[in-house]
Amino acid sequence: MLESVIRRIDTDLEEAIERWSDLLRIPSVSTDPAYKPSMRDAAQWLCQQLEPLGFEVSIRETEGHPVVIGHHPGPDREAPHVLYYGHYDVQPPDPIEEWRSGPFDPTLVNGPHGRQMVARGAVDDKGQLMMWVEALRAWHAEHGGLPVRTTVLLEGEEEVGSRNLRPVLERYKEELAADVCVVSDTTMWDIDTPAITYSLRGLLYTELTCRGPGQDLHSGFYGGAVENPINALTGILGALHDAQGRVQVPGFYDDVVEPSDEELAAWRSLDMDEAGFLASAGVTTSGGGETDRTLLERIWSRPSCDINGIIGGYTGAGAKTVIPERASAKVSFRLVADQDPQRIIEGFRHFIESHTPPGCQVDLEVGSGAPAIRIPTTSPYLQAARKALGKVYDNEAVLMGAGGSIPIAAWMRDILGIDTLLMGFSLSDDGMHSPNEKFEVTCFQRGMKAHAALLEQLSTRP
Amino acid sequence: MLESVIRRIDTDLEEAIERWSDLLRIPSVSTDPAYKPSMRDAAQWLCQQLEPLGFEVSIRETEGHPVVIGHHPGPDREAPHVLYYGHYDVQPPDPIEEWRSGPFDPTLVNGPHGRQMVARGAVDDKGQLMMWVEALRAWHAEHGGLPVRTTVLLEGEEEVGSRNLRPVLERYKEELAADVCVVSDTTMWDIDTPAITYSLRGLLYTELTCRGPGQDLHSGFYGGAVENPINALTGILGALHDAQGRVQVPGFYDDVVEPSDEELAAWRSLDMDEAGFLASAGVTTSGGGETDRTLLERIWSRPSCDINGIIGGYTGAGAKTVIPERASAKVSFRLVADQDPQRIIEGFRHFIESHTPPGCQVDLEVGSGAPAIRIPTTSPYLQAARKALGKVYDNEAVLMGAGGSIPIAAWMRDILGIDTLLMGFSLSDDGMHSPNEKFEVTCFQRGMKAHAALLEQLSTRP
Repeated sequence: MLESVIRRIDTDLEEAIERWSDLLRIPSVSTDPAYKPSMRDAAQWLCQQLEPLGFEVSIRETEGHPVVIGHHPGPDREAPHVLYYGHYDVQPPDPIEEWRSGPFDPTLVNGPHGRQMVARGAVDDKGQLMMWVEALRAWHAEHGGLPVRTTVLLEGEEEVGSRNLRPVLERYKEELAADVCVVSDTTMWDIDTPAITYSLRGLLYTELTCRGPGQDLHSGFYGGAVENPINALTGILGALHDAQGRVQVPGFYDDVVEPSDEELAAWRSLDMDEAGFLASAGVTTSGGGETDRTLLERIWSRPSCDINGIIGGYTGAGAKTVIPERASAKVSFRLVADQDPQRIIEGFRHFIESHTPPGCQVDLEVGSGAPAIRIPTTSPYLQAARKALGKVYDNEAVLMGAGGSIPIAAWMRDILGIDTLLMGFSLSDDGMHSPNEKFEVTCFQRGMKAHAALLEQLSTRP
Repeated sequence: MLESVIRRIDTDLEEAIERWSDLLRIPSVSTDPAYKPSMRDAAQWLCQQLEPLGFEVSIRETEGHPVVIGHHPGPDREAPHVLYYGHYDVQPPDPIEEWRSGPFDPTLVNGPHGRQMVARGAVDDKGQLMMWVEALRAWHAEHGGLPVRTTVLLEGEEEVGSRNLRPVLERYKEELAADVCVVSDTTMWDIDTPAITYSLRGLLYTELTCRGPGQDLHSGFYGGAVENPINALTGILGALHDAQGRVQVPGFYDDVVEPSDEELAAWRSLDMDEAGFLASAGVTTSGGGETDRTLLERIWSRPSCDINGIIGGYTGAGAKTVIPERASAKVSFRLVADQDPQRIIEGFRHFIESHTPPGCQVDLEVGSGAPAIRIPTTSPYLQAARKALGKVYDNEAVLMGAGGSIPIAAWMRDILGIDTLLMGFSLSDDGMHSPNEKFEVTCFQRGMKAHAALLEQLSTRP
């Protein structure tokens, strides 16, 4: 059944590009109230795309921009159920003067890999979400229906932190029930090598406040006699890593899942451009992590600890000889499977206590915490996606890790109890959030086909 | 010759208090331009006090408030030459509503030790400088002259950092030449125990800037792969002290002069109220210095290291997962004799280099540096002052250290090449810089006598 759908995707390519362009012309900038009417325009436009395919679609109001929810019954009530997620909002186009064409005037230009669509949202996420919309359309056109029960969830606040999405998931939990969530908002390994992002680090954010004397003191009168909270705080924080870059919090590595030999071998075979990666950070040397691990391991599979902010004492120009009454720091941990944020907090408390010198006390405030996400490589959904990608690409799909967290994936698991397949088609040079954002037409075209192939794979419950 | 001078000080006490009150009525607040005319009034009033004693006095202009310089030829051109320093400016009276009488309306009240003069500047430094002015007056009245060649230097900017004094010392270097400088601007040990402050810690102020990535990075994408400048900076600073509170800069203690057994015995016999000292800092436990030394040793004779300020990354409310491109800290060292600031800087550079992890670089900016000051206990001037105090007090004078630096003492040595005798009569509860600043009349009276006795001691070249 797939062959005819793929042929149609090829023959209808120009029409698909036209529809993609229509969506790109709607300036749905979520952060700027001036664009509020465009947000609703984009949501309505999406409803209009889904209705002809047999979706029952409606706009749901939130405290912010609206959410689109659509349902397609699929072939029968027993069919597998897929939830597609995407976001129709985009980043502001600033700095506008750096665009070579209008950010909301989608323009096809020729690049080294053929045509590129240049517009704000070309890839993030309008281009990526239109791939699965078009795959559904092509399937419907060829077969008069869809091979799976399908629910669509499109939000308009991803670029401003998805603050109303969690309540939506909780409110419509029953309605959004599905077997698996599919998202296209991540990258490929390279233009010819597709990727599935299967592990995301978690996050634990804390703030330490170290208090010492009852008021700011003169360091001449009291220096060497009264503990200085900045001395104490840097003493604690300075002990967080050993010389090999290992985090010294007790029990920190106890629950860490080591990548399998197969995964490590696969990562090695990727032959990552480490110099290029470091250059993107403006450095020439790696650092800050475990010196006996490769860079990919460190970002994809190892936990880390960063001090994200620190302040204390006199920070103006010139000199002031003060022993301040307090100093504070924001310390976050990137967690991997199967680290439990609660256990890490307990270990961190012990670490702080054992490193706090007499004359100071440290308060630890625990902020947001989310465990890492890792889809087992044996997951049938992961295997289905690999097979689907294998129908379109010669190169085998790379199983990628991601150093950051993607909240939607955590919420899907926490609230709906389902895994999220992150199958994305952007390239690292697509300029998401930057002027002249683009998406390769070849990525768009092969992405549509991969989504069609995934539909086929998922139609027989994996 | 001293007895009659001391008798006159007793019999003329009320007149001396009247003159002291006259000076206190002049609101010579140096920091506030509104009081500028009062600054000149105070300088002129001081000239009028010195002229009748045979001084050739004049007001010298500076870029700020004027300086008073006066010269008395003494008995002959071979006589010892004493330079008196004092300051006629005072701190602002704020918060004004907390005064029980007008800050510039000097008021005598009865306290546990008899009469107290309450006014802004009662002790700092108008009361203290008037003690030696009155001692000179009483000597002149009894003997028709002074027993030493005498130069007087009175500035009006001590409370705002003495920023124009160094140029004055350099400009009038020849004219201000003397054998020793005498200053009353320090404290007694207690109301019945006089003190000479004979050692002052020096200061070395630095600023470190640690730079890492080329721009702020997302800690999810780069955490564990790229060195975080705050992690690196706290790693460096956290290693500055060992568990015993010793500073780990190479060679830091090499040149430190240990107090003699005699000094240590004297300090032990003082039976310092450590709990009271710590309470004044709002703490119950000492810290931040060498754990095997007493508190007095730590403040008076041991070097220390304080981080006076630190800043980096996100310091607002809430969370931001940033790896900042830089972080910086202000680090100062209190130095003791015979530490050389230049050698300490070299050691600190080596320390920083050996503790900077790959992927970061640290710039060290060196600010002001002043070596410690220590008058040998065998100094004839110190002995002269001890003997003079012995004529007035039953308790032997305590040789005190001071944790902070007094710039004037360093400049006297650097520019004029002379030691400074710091013989002061204030008490720790006098409330310098606070509302209801006071000075005990008994301290004032005995201070005048001690200055008369010092004149006698210094008249025969010690």
